[in-house]
Amino acid sequence: MNQDYIVPDNWSIIEEGFDAERVKSSESLFSIGNGAMGQRANFEESYSGETFQGSYIAGIYYPDKTKVGWWKNGYPEYFAKVLNAPNWIGIDIVINGEMLDLAKCMVHNFRRELNMKEGWYSRTFQATLQNGIEIKANVTRFLSLTADELGVINYEITPLNRAAKIEYRPYVDGGVKNEDANWEEQFWEPLDVQHEGNQGFVTARTFKTHFNVATFMHNTLFLAGRELEILPAAVDAGKDKVQFSYVVEVNPNETVTLQKFGGYTVSLNHDNDKLVEAAKNVIADARAKGYEALLEEQKRAWAAIWEMADITIEGDVKAQQGIRFNIFQLNQTYLGKDPRLNIGPKGFTGEKYGGSTYWDTEAYCIPFYMATKDQQVARNLLTYRHNHLQKAIENAQKLGFSNGAALYPMVTMNGEECHNEWEITFEEIHRNGAIAYAIFNYTRFTGDHSYIPEKGLEVLIGIARFWHQRATYSAQRNKYVILGVTGPNEYENNVNNNFYTNYIAKWCIDYAVEQIEKVKREYTADHDRIMKLASLDADEIKQWQEVSGNMYLPYSEEHGVYLQQDGFLDKELVKVSDLDRSQRPINQKWSWDRILRSPYIKQADVLQGFYFFEDHFTQEELERHFDFYEPYTVHESSLSPCVHSIQAAKLGRMEQAYTFYLRTSRLDLDDYNKEVEEGCHITSMAGTWMSIVEGFGGMRVKDDALHFEPRIPQQWKGYSFKVNFRNQVLKVSVHREETVFNLEGDKELTVYVNGKPVTVEPNTLVTV
Amino acid sequence: MNQDYIVPDNWSIIEEGFDAERVKSSESLFSIGNGAMGQRANFEESYSGETFQGSYIAGIYYPDKTKVGWWKNGYPEYFAKVLNAPNWIGIDIVINGEMLDLAKCMVHNFRRELNMKEGWYSRTFQATLQNGIEIKANVTRFLSLTADELGVINYEITPLNRAAKIEYRPYVDGGVKNEDANWEEQFWEPLDVQHEGNQGFVTARTFKTHFNVATFMHNTLFLAGRELEILPAAVDAGKDKVQFSYVVEVNPNETVTLQKFGGYTVSLNHDNDKLVEAAKNVIADARAKGYEALLEEQKRAWAAIWEMADITIEGDVKAQQGIRFNIFQLNQTYLGKDPRLNIGPKGFTGEKYGGSTYWDTEAYCIPFYMATKDQQVARNLLTYRHNHLQKAIENAQKLGFSNGAALYPMVTMNGEECHNEWEITFEEIHRNGAIAYAIFNYTRFTGDHSYIPEKGLEVLIGIARFWHQRATYSAQRNKYVILGVTGPNEYENNVNNNFYTNYIAKWCIDYAVEQIEKVKREYTADHDRIMKLASLDADEIKQWQEVSGNMYLPYSEEHGVYLQQDGFLDKELVKVSDLDRSQRPINQKWSWDRILRSPYIKQADVLQGFYFFEDHFTQEELERHFDFYEPYTVHESSLSPCVHSIQAAKLGRMEQAYTFYLRTSRLDLDDYNKEVEEGCHITSMAGTWMSIVEGFGGMRVKDDALHFEPRIPQQWKGYSFKVNFRNQVLKVSVHREETVFNLEGDKELTVYVNGKPVTVEPNTLVTV
Repeated sequence: MNQDYIVPDNWSIIEEGFDAERVKSSESLFSIGNGAMGQRANFEESYSGETFQGSYIAGIYYPDKTKVGWWKNGYPEYFAKVLNAPNWIGIDIVINGEMLDLAKCMVHNFRRELNMKEGWYSRTFQATLQNGIEIKANVTRFLSLTADELGVINYEITPLNRAAKIEYRPYVDGGVKNEDANWEEQFWEPLDVQHEGNQGFVTARTFKTHFNVATFMHNTLFLAGRELEILPAAVDAGKDKVQFSYVVEVNPNETVTLQKFGGYTVSLNHDNDKLVEAAKNVIADARAKGYEALLEEQKRAWAAIWEMADITIEGDVKAQQGIRFNIFQLNQTYLGKDPRLNIGPKGFTGEKYGGSTYWDTEAYCIPFYMATKDQQVARNLLTYRHNHLQKAIENAQKLGFSNGAALYPMVTMNGEECHNEWEITFEEIHRNGAIAYAIFNYTRFTGDHSYIPEKGLEVLIGIARFWHQRATYSAQRNKYVILGVTGPNEYENNVNNNFYTNYIAKWCIDYAVEQIEKVKREYTADHDRIMKLASLDADEIKQWQEVSGNMYLPYSEEHGVYLQQDGFLDKELVKVSDLDRSQRPINQKWSWDRILRSPYIKQADVLQGFYFFEDHFTQEELERHFDFYEPYTVHESSLSPCVHSIQAAKLGRMEQAYTFYLRTSRLDLDDYNKEVEEGCHITSMAGTWMSIVEGFGGMRVKDDALHFEPRIPQQWKGYSFKVNFRNQVLKVSVHREETVFNLEGDKELTVYVNGKPVTVEPNTLVTV
Repeated sequence: MNQDYIVPDNWSIIEEGFDAERVKSSESLFSIGNGAMGQRANFEESYSGETFQGSYIAGIYYPDKTKVGWWKNGYPEYFAKVLNAPNWIGIDIVINGEMLDLAKCMVHNFRRELNMKEGWYSRTFQATLQNGIEIKANVTRFLSLTADELGVINYEITPLNRAAKIEYRPYVDGGVKNEDANWEEQFWEPLDVQHEGNQGFVTARTFKTHFNVATFMHNTLFLAGRELEILPAAVDAGKDKVQFSYVVEVNPNETVTLQKFGGYTVSLNHDNDKLVEAAKNVIADARAKGYEALLEEQKRAWAAIWEMADITIEGDVKAQQGIRFNIFQLNQTYLGKDPRLNIGPKGFTGEKYGGSTYWDTEAYCIPFYMATKDQQVARNLLTYRHNHLQKAIENAQKLGFSNGAALYPMVTMNGEECHNEWEITFEEIHRNGAIAYAIFNYTRFTGDHSYIPEKGLEVLIGIARFWHQRATYSAQRNKYVILGVTGPNEYENNVNNNFYTNYIAKWCIDYAVEQIEKVKREYTADHDRIMKLASLDADEIKQWQEVSGNMYLPYSEEHGVYLQQDGFLDKELVKVSDLDRSQRPINQKWSWDRILRSPYIKQADVLQGFYFFEDHFTQEELERHFDFYEPYTVHESSLSPCVHSIQAAKLGRMEQAYTFYLRTSRLDLDDYNKEVEEGCHITSMAGTWMSIVEGFGGMRVKDDALHFEPRIPQQWKGYSFKVNFRNQVLKVSVHREETVFNLEGDKELTVYVNGKPVTVEPNTLVTV
C-alpha cells in the first residue's frame, strides 16, 4: 500500500519529491491517453534508472506466438499483444556537454501533476548536473482530444547558476520492444525515415498484422518567450529513428523552450501511402493553432467530458480524487467513437494481459459509458461484438461446437481468442452470458429497441446455440447440466454446474427466444432475414427451450442458498475473518491447489448473478446469499469490491459499502495490490462509478423509468452524479436530508425515489 | 502404424532398406544402453538428413528454467532435464576426398539389426558416393554391460569398385545441445581437452548441477585384419572437441576397420580430478581384452540376463519379438545396481518428458525387476525414494503441508519436483500412494521384512501424514473428502473424491499404522528410533485413523460401482464403441475441455485400484467395475492396456486380453501412436511383462506363496517365464493342456495352481 504518497487533491493527481523506486509506479499513475493513443508517464529526456517504457496506439496489436509449458488441444497459436508503439516523446537533452539524466543528477523540488480537469500532465524539477550546472525544468504534455493523432510537449529549461549551452535532441524512434514479449521477437519492421526542416517521420509496419504507422514530430524553439526561427543544427537519420539537434546558448535565469508536436497517423484511418502526408496535415493544423490554443481546446474538451461524467463528493477529498481518477482514466482509454476499439484492461498504461477486450467491457464498462455519454457509444461497444460474431462462431468450432454456436473469446483484439490457460480459455465460458446481458441492459437503459433486430439478435442466437450445445443431459438428475467450467470466481477451475454459469445460460436462451418472438411481432422483415441467415427454425428453438426449461441449478435446502457449484459444501467452510492475516492475500501466500480446494472466492460469483438478475430474487434471498458468500470472499480481483459495495448498500449496510467503495476507487492510487507499476486497472474503474450510482444512489431502470434509493456514507456530506437517460441529462445530488434532481432536457421525467414517483420538470430543481 | 516395417524375428529387431523418413524412428528403436549410459542409433558418420542426435548418461541432468504461459504459485522454478551428453560415437569418414553422408549417396542393401540376445547393434550397407566410388560398410556397436563406462564401435569399410584413400576422423564432442531446451541455453561448460597418441579426452561440466564428465575415445586401425601401428595423421583439438585423422590406402575388396573405444567417466563415480585417469584405465582394460573378447563378454552378460528374464512365446513371432524388445529395453535402461538411478520414461532413447522417475517405477516397473533380478534391485528402487524423503517433505511444505508430511514429486531426478502443470504437479497426488504400495508389494513378494524397519517406515509415516492433512472434513457428509485431484486418468482434472485416490489414501494410513504396530512388536529399537525421529505419537496416529476410518468413497447404488469421482454420472455416458472412429484418438481430435467433460478414460483409474487391491474385492465386483468402466476407456496412455489385459484374463476374456497384450507389447515397434521418433515408452514395457506373468500366467503372491491361474491366448501354442521367488528361480511353461514348473534352487516350493497346492522339488519338472 501506498496510502499517503499521492497528494490528496480534488482535481489533480500530484506527486511531490523524486523517488527512483517509485518511477515505474508513477509512470503508470500519470499516464495520459486520448482514446486513440496514449503512453506511460515516461520522461522525455534520457533516464538510466528503472523505467518501463510504453507508448500505445489503440487497435494496433501483434499476434505473439503462444508460449506454454504443455500444449493443450485448442490453444490459440497466437496471443494478440498490446504493442509498444514507436516513441514520439523522446527528447535527449545535453547541457554544457552533459546528458541530462535524473538518475545521475541531484534532483530537487520534483513534482508531477496530472490535471484531470484540464487533461494535461506536467513535471517540474530542479537538477544539479555532475558538471555543476543547476537548471529548472518545467515540462507539460498532453494528447489532444480534438485532434486525436496529435500530442504536444512543452519542455522549458532555465539555467539557474550560470549560462548554459543547451542542446535539445528530439527524436522519433521505431526501434521499440515490448516488456512483455514471449520470444524476444521484433514486432516492428522499419519502412521509411524522412525529415524535412523541423519535421521528422518514421514509418514502420507491424510484422504479421501489417499495420502501418507514421510516427512524427515537429519542433519549435523559444528563447525567453520568443520563437527562434532555426532549423536543426544536425540530423541523425537511421533505419528506424530520426533525431534532430538544436543548440541554444541560454543565460542564467533565461528560459529556453522546445515545443514538440508529435503522434501517429495509422493505416486504420489512412491509406498506407498517405500516412506521412496525413501527419504533415496534423502538424500544419497544430502549427496554425499554436500551443496555447491547443491547450485551451484541450481544456474545453475535457470540460465537456466532465460536464457529463463528473461525480462530486463533498467532505472526503480522497474519495473525490479516487472517483475522478477512475472517470478520467476511463475517458483517456475509450471515448466510444470507433466500434473497432474497446477497453483494454490496462488501457494505455501498460501492456500486461494483452488483448483489449474482456467480459469486463460488457459486465462493468457498458453501464458507465451508457450513462455518461451519448447512447451511440454503448451501441458501438455492442457493435464491436456483432462485428466479431463470425470469429466467435469459428472459436466455438475449434472447441467442437457447430451449427453457428458462438463462443466469444476470453481475451481478444480482433475477435479471435488469444488467451491460453485451458481452465480460462476453454472453461470460463460464462463470458458469453455477459455479452447477451449487455444487449439486454442496453435496451433496458436506452429504450433503443432497434439494435436487436438490426444486429443484436444474430448475436443472441449464436450465444443461445452455444449454451444449448454446451449443456448436456444428466440421466441421473433428469436435468441439463453444464460440466467443466470456471465461473467468475477464478479460484475454482473445472467445476460442474456453477450456479452463475447455469443461470445465465438458461437466461440467454430464454432471452433469445423472447427477442425472436418480439422481433417477429415488431420487425417482421428483420425476423425473416435473420432466421434465414441463421438457418434457424422453430424445431431448433424448441430444443433450446428443452434445455433452458430443465436447467439444473445447485441448491442447498439446509442453507437456503444456491450453491456456487456442485460440491461446494464439501469444502472446509472457514470464514475469511477466521484466517490468519499472514495467509493473505492467498494468491500470493498459497499454492494454487490449496486455493482451488479452499472455499475462498476471488470475486462475486453467485452474487454476480444476483447483481445481474436482481429482480429475479427477493431482498431476503439477496441477504441470505450475501451473508453466505461474502464471508468467504477475499476480493483479490479488482472487479470484486464494486459489486459487493452495491449489494451492501442495497442491504443498508453503509459502513461495509463504503469500505468496499474505497477499495475499488483508490485501488491504483494507493496501490493496494503492489503492482501498479505494471499499469492501472482500467476496466474495474467503471465498477467504482457503479458503486456510487447504483450502490449509494440506488439507481435502477425498471419499466422504462429511473428508480433511486439514495443512501449516503456517513463519511460524506453529499455527492452528485449525472445520468444521460434517453437523451436527457438528469443530475442527482444526494445529501443526508434530501436528494435534489435537476433535469437538462426538454420533457418532464418521472423518476421513482424509494418507490415513489417524482416528476422532474426540465431545468427545475426538485428536492425530495 | 508401422505394422509391417520391422522384420519379425524371435531375437532381433531388423530393418531392411534405407528410408530417410524413418531415420528418426529407427534411431529410437535401435537405441542401445547399458544402464549407465546409452544413445539413440545415430549414425557414426556425418549425416545431413533429418536426425535426432541423442546420447545420455544415467543420473546426469540439468535444471532447465521452467517455461509456462501463466505462472501458478507453487510451480518449481526448474525442470530437471535429461541431458544430451557429449558425443563419443562420431566418426567422420572421407573417401577419396568426399565425406560419406548417407543423405548424399546412393544407398543399397541397408540393414540394421539390434541383436537383443547378445546385446549389440549393427548396420551394414553399400553406398555409391558422388565421386563414383562404391563401398560396403559394416558397423557394430555395443555398450559393455560388464564395464559400463565403455562403448565399442567396429567400423569396417570395403571399397568395391576401385582403390580408395579412406580417412577416418573419429572425435569426441562436448558441444551438444538438447532437442528439448526451454530457453536455448547451453547446458555444458567445456573444461579441458586432452589427447595423447590414439586417445582423446574432453572434460566438461554441466552448468548449475556441476556434474563433471570426461568423454573419451581410443582408436585402433586394422587393414585386412591386421592392426596398423599408427598414430593420428592430424589432430584437431578445440575447446570442447578433439578429432583425429587416420588415412589409409585401401585396395578394392580389402577391408579397413576402425575400432573405437569410447564412453564416459563421471563425477558420480570418480573424483573430479581423476576423470581422465579413470578413462585411461577403462581404455587400458579394454585394450588388454581386445574387441573379440569384449564382444564375447557382452554376449555372456546378456545371456545371464536372458537366463533370468526371458519370456518365450511359441507360435507367434510378433508377440515373441514384442515381449523380448520390452524386456531388452528395460534392461538397457536400468539394471538396478545403483540406488541413485531410476527408470526414465524414455530411457536412453530420447529426452521427452524430462526427469527420470515417475510413479510408473513403483506401479509398473518394480514387479518386473523384483521377479527377474536379485531382490536387492527392487530394494534399491525403494531406497531411491527413501533417499528422497527429505525432498518429498520439502515438496509438501511448498504446497502448504507441515509436520513431516511427504509428497513425492510427479517427476523428478533428484527428489525435487520438476513438472509444471498445476493439474498434474499439485493434484495428481495419488502417486504418493504408489510409493507406499511398492513397499507393501516388495515385502509381500520378497518376504524381506527388514526393509520397513530399516527405511520404509519413515516413508510410510511421511505419506500417511500427507494424506491425513490432505483429506478434509465435509460437514455435509460427516466424512473425510479429498478435493481437487487428478487421478490416474489424466483426462479428468481437479475432481473431487477420485475413488482411486481416496481409496489408496485410506489404505496408506491403515498400512502405515499396521506397520508401525508390527515394527513396534518385532523391531522395537527401530520403532523407538523412528517414532523419535519423526516426532510421532499415539495421539497423532489416532487422528490419522479418524480420517482413514471415515474416508468417503463415492458409490452408485444404481450401478453397484464405485464412482471414478463425484459427479461422474452427470456425464453423457456414450460408450467408446459408439463414438465415430473419426473422433479418435480424442487426444488428437478433441479440444481439452471436451475431453475433460467427456466420460472417456485415458488409463485404468478405478480399475487401477482394483488391480492394486484385488483381494479387497470379489470377482463379481471386478467384473461389474470392468464392465462399467472399460467401455469408456480409450487407452490413450501407454500404461493402460496392460492393466486391462491382466483383468480381462482374470475374467477369462482371453480374446480381449490378447488384444490388449498386443497393443502394449508392440506399441513402439509398430508405432501405434506415431511418435516413436521421440523415443520408446520404456516404463510401460514393464506392464507388458505383467500382462503375461500376472495376466495370462495369473501369478499372485498370497500368504507367502505363489499362486497361478494359467491361461493361454488361442493364438499361441505356449509360453514360459521365470520368476525369482525368494532366491529360488521358478520357471513356468504354459501350454494349452498343461503347465510345467521347474525350480532352480535348493528347497521345495509349494505353489498354488487354480487354488490347488502343487509341490515343486528343485530341478524336477512338475506338470499340472
